[in-house]
Amino acid sequence: MAFGWIDEQAELRRRAGLVRTLRPRPAGTPLLDLASNDYLGLARHPEVTEGAARAARTWGGGATGSRLVTGTTELHAELERELADFCGFEAALVFSSGYAANLAAVTALAPHGSLIVSDAGNHASLIDGCRLARGATQVVAHRDPDAVRKALDGHEGPAVAVSDTVFSVDGDAAPLAALAEACREHGAGLVLDDAHGLGVLGDGGRGAPHAAGIAGAEDVVVTVTLSKSLGSQGGAVLGTGRVIAHLVNAARTFIFDTGLAPAAAGAALSALRLLRREPGRAARASEVARELHARLTAVGLEAVRPDAAVVSVRAPSPEQAVGWAADCRAAGLSVGCFRPPSVPDGVSRLRLTARADLSGAEIERAVRVIGDTRP
Amino acid sequence: MAFGWIDEQAELRRRAGLVRTLRPRPAGTPLLDLASNDYLGLARHPEVTEGAARAARTWGGGATGSRLVTGTTELHAELERELADFCGFEAALVFSSGYAANLAAVTALAPHGSLIVSDAGNHASLIDGCRLARGATQVVAHRDPDAVRKALDGHEGPAVAVSDTVFSVDGDAAPLAALAEACREHGAGLVLDDAHGLGVLGDGGRGAPHAAGIAGAEDVVVTVTLSKSLGSQGGAVLGTGRVIAHLVNAARTFIFDTGLAPAAAGAALSALRLLRREPGRAARASEVARELHARLTAVGLEAVRPDAAVVSVRAPSPEQAVGWAADCRAAGLSVGCFRPPSVPDGVSRLRLTARADLSGAEIERAVRVIGDTRP
Repeated sequence: MAFGWIDEQAELRRRAGLVRTLRPRPAGTPLLDLASNDYLGLARHPEVTEGAARAARTWGGGATGSRLVTGTTELHAELERELADFCGFEAALVFSSGYAANLAAVTALAPHGSLIVSDAGNHASLIDGCRLARGATQVVAHRDPDAVRKALDGHEGPAVAVSDTVFSVDGDAAPLAALAEACREHGAGLVLDDAHGLGVLGDGGRGAPHAAGIAGAEDVVVTVTLSKSLGSQGGAVLGTGRVIAHLVNAARTFIFDTGLAPAAAGAALSALRLLRREPGRAARASEVARELHARLTAVGLEAVRPDAAVVSVRAPSPEQAVGWAADCRAAGLSVGCFRPPSVPDGVSRLRLTARADLSGAEIERAVRVIGDTRP
Repeated sequence: MAFGWIDEQAELRRRAGLVRTLRPRPAGTPLLDLASNDYLGLARHPEVTEGAARAARTWGGGATGSRLVTGTTELHAELERELADFCGFEAALVFSSGYAANLAAVTALAPHGSLIVSDAGNHASLIDGCRLARGATQVVAHRDPDAVRKALDGHEGPAVAVSDTVFSVDGDAAPLAALAEACREHGAGLVLDDAHGLGVLGDGGRGAPHAAGIAGAEDVVVTVTLSKSLGSQGGAVLGTGRVIAHLVNAARTFIFDTGLAPAAAGAALSALRLLRREPGRAARASEVARELHARLTAVGLEAVRPDAAVVSVRAPSPEQAVGWAADCRAAGLSVGCFRPPSVPDGVSRLRLTARADLSGAEIERAVRVIGDTRP
């Protein structure tokens, strides 16, 4: 039978306690949310949802075609201009997802004969970008500029180093300035995924590359997502006009994908303008993260010191992580539960999001529930 | 300099007449649209745009997380149920794009040691799925069930054949029943991309696999897009409950991507319900395509006989294709212009979409403009 082998894999997953099932959520829920990536609490902000509704009415339910045929509206161009300006880059290119943006950046900037130096903790979408690219990939130790330097040593031809700015699982940050220096010494480019930095790090949320003083540099390309701090959907690549023009001509996930829906572009643009107007939201997310970490540590839990708005708490096993998350949920708290294969080191965790709009009382309640339900 | 090689590639493109640039379109335009993939003219239908607006207000500007964390709403589940039911499958899984759905289906169903037999004319997203998959790929002649049979002969272990149902560039259809038979003889699965079939082919637009009598079969998996006939954004995989559960657990572009924005899910659901209520829209798209083809041929143009709603007209060269499309635009008609690397055979074309809501007078006008501007 064609797909018989699927049953064997399902059985192995069952035995390892690694079965995943979907749990559709209702529109209104009394659960306290520390699981989403809605870092600034903007996904349900009326300005953002109205931005989506207005764009759908004005431009339609979809972009109607690929970006190079009919899928580029003036709204897309406006979002690209404002996003580039906010993050300190010359140009931006919007995609239907951050995943697609990462595939585009890595594949288009790592041609045949080139070298990609990739951090061992990178996100799945960067890893898939490396696998799709025509260049050769060398995986190096996590957050290690010297390892990048060593990998670049002696390579002839184009090269890029690729890294998350803030790693999704533990919320730890990459040493951006040192990475940029290592790349420059070797004439290599640096491709950074700022999915968890935009809206949280840097002046008013301009992102980790801006904070590190490398935004807008000729040899730095940054990808961001519109689906986390900006409460919408989609992704973007930021770079020089030259790099962006190259992507328009060479990136398959740009050329062969339908353009981002107008509603998503409209929501992201509204969120971006709101963040410009209320820059304090960015710093507040980091403040909540630090407070969460301090309180969790104070009750004896093993949590990683947060560099942005993600706080990761270690669990003894996948099964116990699942049980812990379920007990939190039963007590009114929604937390993320990361298990293999979503964790690079095989260690299961609760993953908490320090939303900028969490109150002191909510933080206290979250820590109490997590502490009381620990396995 | 890190990205110096980009300039050389740009120069080569310039010399070959293959430079692409974005042309943002305004919300209101007097241009007659034969370029978009809005086959049923639903992208700007008030029910569809209101579906998007209502969903954004109810559920937020984004899904807030990956589908397995917070990104599955009851709206996603509703869309998946209705889409599966409409197309005649047990279950469906919605993605942020058709590209992501294709990467998911191919990679998750072609594990290490398996064989993928891929039609030479397949869409870029299926090709990238083959490149990402752990299985080995064998490319076979276009629309050739015997070639598929021969490729499957003698292979041990899991195997799938992968094909578009309607090929994007020329609008020609794959021989689905014969492909399914070839696969069954060898115990192989069949993965079909029905991006250009859904909403156009089959009873009331139920798609090409439904028309071929293979929808819902245990060994058939179909991907569709929400961004063409359904006027929204996103993609979906349709299959048995077992296959869909496998994708939830194994498909990286499902696990590691933010869920589809509620507005896009809402728009697609509204369009689907409208299509159920007005099934005649599907047949009308094919009728318009046949009329377009007949009239273009009557004025001496070389057009491919359409199997769905795409009509392809050959151009002598990339430069002349670009000039032809520009002349059409100057005369008030928007047409697609496909050039390398978007065409598998290197032949440039005008690509016309036979929207179901084109009037007889509009078809006449389109043919007159295309004929008058021919190079």
